[in-house]
Amino acid sequence: MNMKQATYSHHWFLTAGECDATGRMPLTLLGERIIEVATEHANALGIGYANLVTRGIGWVLSRLSIEMTSWPGINDTYSMTTWIETINHRFSERNVMIADASGSPIGYARTVWAPIDFKTRGLADLGPFSEGLPTADLPCPIERFPRIRLGGGNLVRSEYTFKYCDLDFNRHVNTVRYISLLLNQWPLQHFDAYCLRRFDIGFARECYFGQTVSLLRDDSGGASLCELQRGADKVLSARFVWEEKSAGDEPDRD
Amino acid sequence: MNMKQATYSHHWFLTAGECDATGRMPLTLLGERIIEVATEHANALGIGYANLVTRGIGWVLSRLSIEMTSWPGINDTYSMTTWIETINHRFSERNVMIADASGSPIGYARTVWAPIDFKTRGLADLGPFSEGLPTADLPCPIERFPRIRLGGGNLVRSEYTFKYCDLDFNRHVNTVRYISLLLNQWPLQHFDAYCLRRFDIGFARECYFGQTVSLLRDDSGGASLCELQRGADKVLSARFVWEEKSAGDEPDRD
Repeated sequence: MNMKQATYSHHWFLTAGECDATGRMPLTLLGERIIEVATEHANALGIGYANLVTRGIGWVLSRLSIEMTSWPGINDTYSMTTWIETINHRFSERNVMIADASGSPIGYARTVWAPIDFKTRGLADLGPFSEGLPTADLPCPIERFPRIRLGGGNLVRSEYTFKYCDLDFNRHVNTVRYISLLLNQWPLQHFDAYCLRRFDIGFARECYFGQTVSLLRDDSGGASLCELQRGADKVLSARFVWEEKSAGDEPDRD
Repeated sequence: MNMKQATYSHHWFLTAGECDATGRMPLTLLGERIIEVATEHANALGIGYANLVTRGIGWVLSRLSIEMTSWPGINDTYSMTTWIETINHRFSERNVMIADASGSPIGYARTVWAPIDFKTRGLADLGPFSEGLPTADLPCPIERFPRIRLGGGNLVRSEYTFKYCDLDFNRHVNTVRYISLLLNQWPLQHFDAYCLRRFDIGFARECYFGQTVSLLRDDSGGASLCELQRGADKVLSARFVWEEKSAGDEPDRD
């Protein structure tokens, strides 16, 4: 597929081994798939890794917001359709519609991507790569990335040091591994009792091998607000909106 | 594909975001793909999750051995072809050939799968599921799973407690997360200097949420031998055979 098509779709089959302890698609895999479909579309549009690397730049995911009405279970087929909403020299807003086997939407994602310079690690200019690309004006009925501000009250705090498996080809910590780190704050019973309806994550800084970060969490409002800090610097902020599960949400296991 | 075909193949494209810090396919993803292609073939043969769950049993991976001559890099296409070598009431030996974009083998894997009873968590009998299945006698020129016995000398020791993202639909720790835990023992420079040629992992016991394990490593021989223990019990043993990288092994990054 080398034509500059405004939308790009990919179908997957969710294997048992890919599901979490509740028998559903985990948020980590959903994030991975969103990055995969975005990468495939970018490659098809001539703005992928192979193209940008010729100018010493590459895409990094800056913001990700996901809202799901239901989650695929074991042996379900699902698909994602992605399109560029806006693109300029500095960033690109790309949306994703997640659908069940019948093609009905079960969720949406909003992503913001920015180019970084591999040498300086600073933000770069897309230059000609941002020109002549097809955008689409399809519905993405979820809010943009919110303002995430933790209260000063009873924050839950933990520490973590990044390891080899946390890194990707950019030699920095990968988005999906940050998501794992955030999810691993809760006990298993939390995931049995609550379903994730909305997730937001926004990055301020990169992290590298061996760095130790502090994870702060504020559960005092209607959602779980998180901030990852390295020393006094903010690395990322995130928000989880949980919904209590009803009996019907449980996949059949026996 | 619902015919009982003796071999099953799947092709993938390796995105930049899936690669490790050295720009190559990580062992964790290779393990994930082997499990994926095995699952897809089992589903096609009528011995997948959906079939076995009707009798309250499911497959668990008992042993995995991988030998690679080269590893896919960013934007490479690769494929896996899998077949059953032997199957009986108690276990199944399934092999995998990993090929590059031209179809030439770049590695092989041997896997041993056993059925467990979801209620008792003990080994089960496959019964009629082991009958009438096609096997293949294709080349798999790598040794079977070896005997792994750590020396008593200078063992490297660390501890880990399992968290939500370590679990899969079986509500036990997933194979791929054990592999992450093992890989995370080494600093990034190790992966820059050495290439993994052979990996073996064999499971003795399941681990569950919140359990703490000790990881022991013996580097005194020509390979790294590892054992994971929960109290006095062995959970798994593993072996990594490393090879010093030559300049030609480096993917081009700039």
